[in-house]
Amino acid sequence: MAEDVIEIGEDAYALKSELFQKVRDAIEAGNGEDIDMLMEPLHAADIADFLEQIEPHERRDLLEIWKGGLDGEILSEIEDNVREEILGYLTPQELTEAVRELESDDVVDLVEYLDEDQQEAVLELLGPMDRVAVEKALAYPEESAGRLMQVETVRAPQHWTVGEMIDFLRAHPDELPDQFYHVILVDPRMKPVGNVTLGRLMSSRRDVKLFDIKEEMFTTIPAEQDEGEVAYAFNQYHLISAPVVDEDGRLVGVITIDDAMIVLAEENAEDLLRLAGVGENTVNDRVVTTTRQRFPWLAVNLVTAILASLVISLFEDVIAGLVALAVLMPIVASMGGNAGTQSLTVAVRAIATKDLTGSNVLRVIRREVLVGLINGLIFAVVMGIIGILWFGEPLLGVVIAAAMVINLVIAGLAGTVIPVVLEKLGIDPALASGAFVTTVTDVVGFFAFLGLAAVVLL
Amino acid sequence: MAEDVIEIGEDAYALKSELFQKVRDAIEAGNGEDIDMLMEPLHAADIADFLEQIEPHERRDLLEIWKGGLDGEILSEIEDNVREEILGYLTPQELTEAVRELESDDVVDLVEYLDEDQQEAVLELLGPMDRVAVEKALAYPEESAGRLMQVETVRAPQHWTVGEMIDFLRAHPDELPDQFYHVILVDPRMKPVGNVTLGRLMSSRRDVKLFDIKEEMFTTIPAEQDEGEVAYAFNQYHLISAPVVDEDGRLVGVITIDDAMIVLAEENAEDLLRLAGVGENTVNDRVVTTTRQRFPWLAVNLVTAILASLVISLFEDVIAGLVALAVLMPIVASMGGNAGTQSLTVAVRAIATKDLTGSNVLRVIRREVLVGLINGLIFAVVMGIIGILWFGEPLLGVVIAAAMVINLVIAGLAGTVIPVVLEKLGIDPALASGAFVTTVTDVVGFFAFLGLAAVVLL
Repeated sequence: MAEDVIEIGEDAYALKSELFQKVRDAIEAGNGEDIDMLMEPLHAADIADFLEQIEPHERRDLLEIWKGGLDGEILSEIEDNVREEILGYLTPQELTEAVRELESDDVVDLVEYLDEDQQEAVLELLGPMDRVAVEKALAYPEESAGRLMQVETVRAPQHWTVGEMIDFLRAHPDELPDQFYHVILVDPRMKPVGNVTLGRLMSSRRDVKLFDIKEEMFTTIPAEQDEGEVAYAFNQYHLISAPVVDEDGRLVGVITIDDAMIVLAEENAEDLLRLAGVGENTVNDRVVTTTRQRFPWLAVNLVTAILASLVISLFEDVIAGLVALAVLMPIVASMGGNAGTQSLTVAVRAIATKDLTGSNVLRVIRREVLVGLINGLIFAVVMGIIGILWFGEPLLGVVIAAAMVINLVIAGLAGTVIPVVLEKLGIDPALASGAFVTTVTDVVGFFAFLGLAAVVLL
Repeated sequence: MAEDVIEIGEDAYALKSELFQKVRDAIEAGNGEDIDMLMEPLHAADIADFLEQIEPHERRDLLEIWKGGLDGEILSEIEDNVREEILGYLTPQELTEAVRELESDDVVDLVEYLDEDQQEAVLELLGPMDRVAVEKALAYPEESAGRLMQVETVRAPQHWTVGEMIDFLRAHPDELPDQFYHVILVDPRMKPVGNVTLGRLMSSRRDVKLFDIKEEMFTTIPAEQDEGEVAYAFNQYHLISAPVVDEDGRLVGVITIDDAMIVLAEENAEDLLRLAGVGENTVNDRVVTTTRQRFPWLAVNLVTAILASLVISLFEDVIAGLVALAVLMPIVASMGGNAGTQSLTVAVRAIATKDLTGSNVLRVIRREVLVGLINGLIFAVVMGIIGILWFGEPLLGVVIAAAMVINLVIAGLAGTVIPVVLEKLGIDPALASGAFVTTVTDVVGFFAFLGLAAVVLL
C-alpha cells in the first residue's frame, strides 16, 4: 500500500477497478513488464485475490506472459479451486522453484491436495531437510494441528540463560523462521515446559535464567487435534504461538496465531455457508461445481416440501370448502420457519463457541420456548385481526391466531433441541439443522392451521 | 489446563459439567475458598464463560461470596449483557481495583459502554497517565481502530542500532507492554516508517542499524478506520501488529493480532446472525431482550408473507377449481426461497471478504443464473413427474415444472443482485438481503405457478 494515501472508508483494502483495466490492457499487449510493474506494489494476498477475480481465460493468458511472477507466497494465498487450475499450467520444476522459499507449513498447504504424482514430483525436488519436514506433516490427518504447524521451532534447554539464548540466536540467524514470538523451553526429553516471549527475553539481563521469565499461561496442542479446536484455543486463550506435541508430549512443531486466524475465518465461513445449505462454495467456483454442491440441499428441501404438501393434501376438502385457507396458510408456515431459523442459528453459533453446553441447555430451551410464546401471541393478535378484516370471518382470525402461537412455540423448541441433539449424535448441526427445523415448522404450521380450521370452521 | 491430560477430541476445551456441580455445592455452602480453588486452574476466558452459563441468580449468589476473585481480565472476557449485570454488583472502587492492571485497550473495552456517571467514577480512580490514555481512546468513534488500539507502544528513532535498542529495553522493563512483537521505527515527527520484528532484532549484531533490518511489508492503520476493516487487513496481510496513526500520520498506538482476531470472530458471528434475522443475540440474553431483538425481523417477514398471500388471493377462483394447486404451490415457493438463500449467502460472504467486486459481479450473476437454470431443470423434471403421478394430470406436471425453472432462475438472479445493490446503497447486505430475496421468490413462485395454471389448466 502506498504510504502517502491513507484510506479510511469501507473499501480501504479492496482492489481498485482501474487495476483490472490496466492489467487487461497489458495482457492484450502481451506486455509482461507492465504486469510486473502493476503487481509489484501489491501484497501476495491481493495478487491472489486479483487472480481469483478475473475470468479463467484471462488467468491463462496472464500466466502465459507472467509465469515467473508467480511465487510460492502468492500460490499459498489462492483459494483451492483456482490454485488447482493454476498449478495445471506449471511444470513441477516451476512449482518447486516457487515453493522453495516457503516455510514447511505453507508447502504442506500447497501440496496436500495435489494428486500423488504431482506431489511426488514436487517433494523430490525439495531439499532433503524440507522434504522430511513436509512428509512428516503429511502423515498427520487432514485438518489437524500437525498439518497446520510449521516444524521450524526456536527452542532452548530450560536451564539456559538470557545471554546464552541471545548468543545462540545471533550465531544462527539464517536458521530462524521468518516470524517467531516465543522461545520454547524444553526438558531433556524434548517436552515443552514453557514459553518465553521475545519481549521478556530482550528486556531481561544476560544472567537471568530463561526458566524464571517464562510465561504463566502455557498451552500445548496435540498434533492430532482438529484445526477447529486449535483455532478455538487461540481465540479463547489469546495465544500467540503454541508448541505442538506428539502423543508422548514431545515437541514436534509450532502453530502461530496468523495460521489459527485463517482457520478461524474458514470455520466461521463454513458454518455460515452450511447453514444456508452451500458446502464450501465461493463466487469463483465453476458452474458445474456450484450446481453439484447446491443440489443435495435443494433435494433435501424438496423432500421436506413434499412432506408439507402431503399434510396439506390431508385437508383438500377443507380447502375446497374455504379457499381463504389456501391464501393464509403459507403465512403460518413462513413465520414458523423464520422463528425456527432464528433459534437454530443462535444455537448453532453457541455450540460452535462452546457457550451452549449440558449445563445451560435446559435454560436455553425454556427461554427459546418463552420467546416463541411471546412473539407468537403478539403476531397472533396482529394476524387474527388481519384475518378477520380481510375475510370478514371472526373464526378464521381465531384459527390463524391459535396456529401462529402453536407454530412459534414449536419453532423455538425445535430450533434449539434439533441442533443440540444433532451435535450429540456427532452430526454437524450447522449442516443439518435447517432442513429438520423447517420440516417441523412447515408440517406443524399447516397441520395446526388446517386442522383447527377443519374442527372450528366446518 | 493440566499438562498431563492431553485432550484431542471435539470437547478438549469445553467446560466440564462436574465443575458446575462443584461450584453450585460451594455456593450453597457459602464457601468462598472452595470456589477460589475451583477457579484457580482456569483461564480468565473460561471463568468468563462459566459465569455466562450459570443462571442469573446463581451469578448473584456466587459473586456475593467471591467478589474478590473477579479481576479485570475476567471482566474484559465476559460478554456485554452479562458484564453489565455484574458491574451492577460492584462499587466503583471494586471496579477500579479490577481494572488497574489492564492495558489501556482493555480498560476502554470495559468502560466504553458504562453510563457516564459510572465511567467518570472509574476514570477518576485511575492514575493520571492511564486516565489520559483511556480518554484519548474514548474520543475515537465506537468500533474504530482508535478504540481497539493500545496506546502503549514500543518505538525507536529510525537511526538507532540494535545495541541501543536492547539497552533501552533492558533499562525500562516495567514500561513495556505485556506482549509486543515489533519495535516501531519513527521519524523525528513521530511518523512510523517501519517495523522491526523482535526475532530479527535479537538475531542481529549490536552495531546493525534498525532501519536496515526493518520488515519489507509495512501497513499503518488510520485511527478512524472501522474495526471490521482493521480485522480484514490483519487477516488478509497476516499482520501481527500494526501502528495506528492520526490524520497527520503520527503514531498514536498499536493494534495487535489477538485483538484483530476477536473482532474478526465477532464480525463473522454478526454476519451469521444477521443473515438469520437475529441482531446480536446470544444464548445468555434475557427473554425480553431476545423477544425484542427477534420481533422486527419476524414483522418484516409477516409483511412479505402477506404480500405472497395477496398474490395467492388473486387466484382464489383457480384454486377453487383445482385444489391440487393449493397442495403443490408451497413447493415452488420453498425451493425458490432455498435456492435464493444459497445464492445470497455466498454473495454476502464474498462481499464481506472483498471477493465480489465490480470487476467480477457480472460473471457471478451470470453464473448464479446458470446454476439456477440447471438445478431448476433437474428439479422441474423430478417435480413434473411427481405432479403427474400424484394427481394423474399431465398438464399439472408441466405447470409445476415450468414454474420451478422460472423461480430457480429468479432466485439465482435476486440472490446475487439484491445484496450487491444493498451494499452499493450503504445498507448491510447481511441484514436486509434475506427479506427481499424471499419476498421475490415467494411472489414469483406463487405467481408463476398459479398464473400458468390459470392459463393452461382452466
